[in-house]
Amino acid sequence: MKLAYKLWLDSNGKAFGDGPYELLRRVHKTHSLHQASFQMGMSYSKAWNLIRTLEERLGFALLERKTGGRSGGGSKITPEGRSLMKQYGPFRKDIEKTLKKLFHKHFRQFL
Amino acid sequence: MKLAYKLWLDSNGKAFGDGPYELLRRVHKTHSLHQASFQMGMSYSKAWNLIRTLEERLGFALLERKTGGRSGGGSKITPEGRSLMKQYGPFRKDIEKTLKKLFHKHFRQFL
Repeated sequence: MKLAYKLWLDSNGKAFGDGPYELLRRVHKTHSLHQASFQMGMSYSKAWNLIRTLEERLGFALLERKTGGRSGGGSKITPEGRSLMKQYGPFRKDIEKTLKKLFHKHFRQFL
Repeated sequence: MKLAYKLWLDSNGKAFGDGPYELLRRVHKTHSLHQASFQMGMSYSKAWNLIRTLEERLGFALLERKTGGRSGGGSKITPEGRSLMKQYGPFRKDIEKTLKKLFHKHFRQFL
């Protein structure tokens, strides 16, 4: 027996969670939403729509679009997006650790 | 912005969670799975199948069926079921409180 869960930040719908966090982490590494969505097996248009929806619900932009240039443009995380990521990462780890601890505390004999 | 989540005990599928807990609480009060499922807007057969599935995944019975008698039978929670409920209730409250705390700790400026 184990504890299973899903969690997300909500603001009139899902505003942020593990999937978006992973996507942004990959954008941060590759400087490209194309690359990031490809790596996650997600179509570019789906990733793009997801980002738009999250931005609307969060009330701030997550990505700056750089167009043109020799590299053919790319994507960069906004300062607000970086700030959100920097809070979400440790929050998520804290949650994981804490839930495990609570589960063991309350359900010792069912494990 | 708020934190949203779903959680459940898992053992090759959902083995227990808020819905089953609420259903068992009502069985405990009414001594009847008929009553309990009716109160929750669930068909009796759906409730019955749910209980059977949970029992299989948990590896023990949740309900004892009392048949016949003047009252036309009824349902009673097994000792293992009561024990599970008595752990799940405080666990759930603990989770709720702890997640709220962690959310506020990590996302103060987004609230």
